[in-house]
Amino acid sequence: MQPELISFKELGDERGALVALEQCHNIPFEIKRVYYIYGTQENVRRGFHAHKELEQVAICVKGGCSFSLDDGKEQAHCRLESPTVGLYMGAMLWHEMYDFTDDCVLMVLASDHYDEADYIRHYDTFIEMVA
Amino acid sequence: MQPELISFKELGDERGALVALEQCHNIPFEIKRVYYIYGTQENVRRGFHAHKELEQVAICVKGGCSFSLDDGKEQAHCRLESPTVGLYMGAMLWHEMYDFTDDCVLMVLASDHYDEADYIRHYDTFIEMVA
Repeated sequence: MQPELISFKELGDERGALVALEQCHNIPFEIKRVYYIYGTQENVRRGFHAHKELEQVAICVKGGCSFSLDDGKEQAHCRLESPTVGLYMGAMLWHEMYDFTDDCVLMVLASDHYDEADYIRHYDTFIEMVA
Repeated sequence: MQPELISFKELGDERGALVALEQCHNIPFEIKRVYYIYGTQENVRRGFHAHKELEQVAICVKGGCSFSLDDGKEQAHCRLESPTVGLYMGAMLWHEMYDFTDDCVLMVLASDHYDEADYIRHYDTFIEMVA
């Protein structure tokens, strides 16, 4: 498997840079939730779950972090470190994030509100479900 | 007039911090677009427009910047420099942003897709419209 990376156009001029994300245009779903992770402590790994339905796009708007992805058959890794690159994560994709830079702000756009029932938090359960 | 600031709950633990924004919950509209401004050059002022209909919430997810707001009758100023504080800007509010820190990432959630026809780019026109 390959990580599904999306390139965003940077609208830059003499003032600085701007990136615009629009639902159902360069983001392939309706944006119902936006969350951001920052102040991540050294050597922390986050994630360790998959979603039954949720789709997400993750972008490091500052700094960088790495992703480990697992669809139950294959694994992939990638590093995000540009505000113009997003990682699309569809349903049923186990993911972990690590190697956050001190200044990292990881922003994630999600296709739905928070719903604990949509989370698969045990890897063994995940593997059974995708088998 | 007072700037309409919204406080967001920081979900912090030993791993770091996370803030979640949900449309029609802590964001008072449907999130159709998200844009972010970064790499802003020193002494730059941005904005200089109002919107006929668009609603927005602006958050400095990294660094800080200042806002000047004008509803046609009164002016207000505020500084954003926390990932847990958003500035709500409704329709018909002239706004300018300035004093960006070098590391500033200003994220804005918007209630609609980009539409040039929704912009009021001349201050005189804005003043006539709100009179």
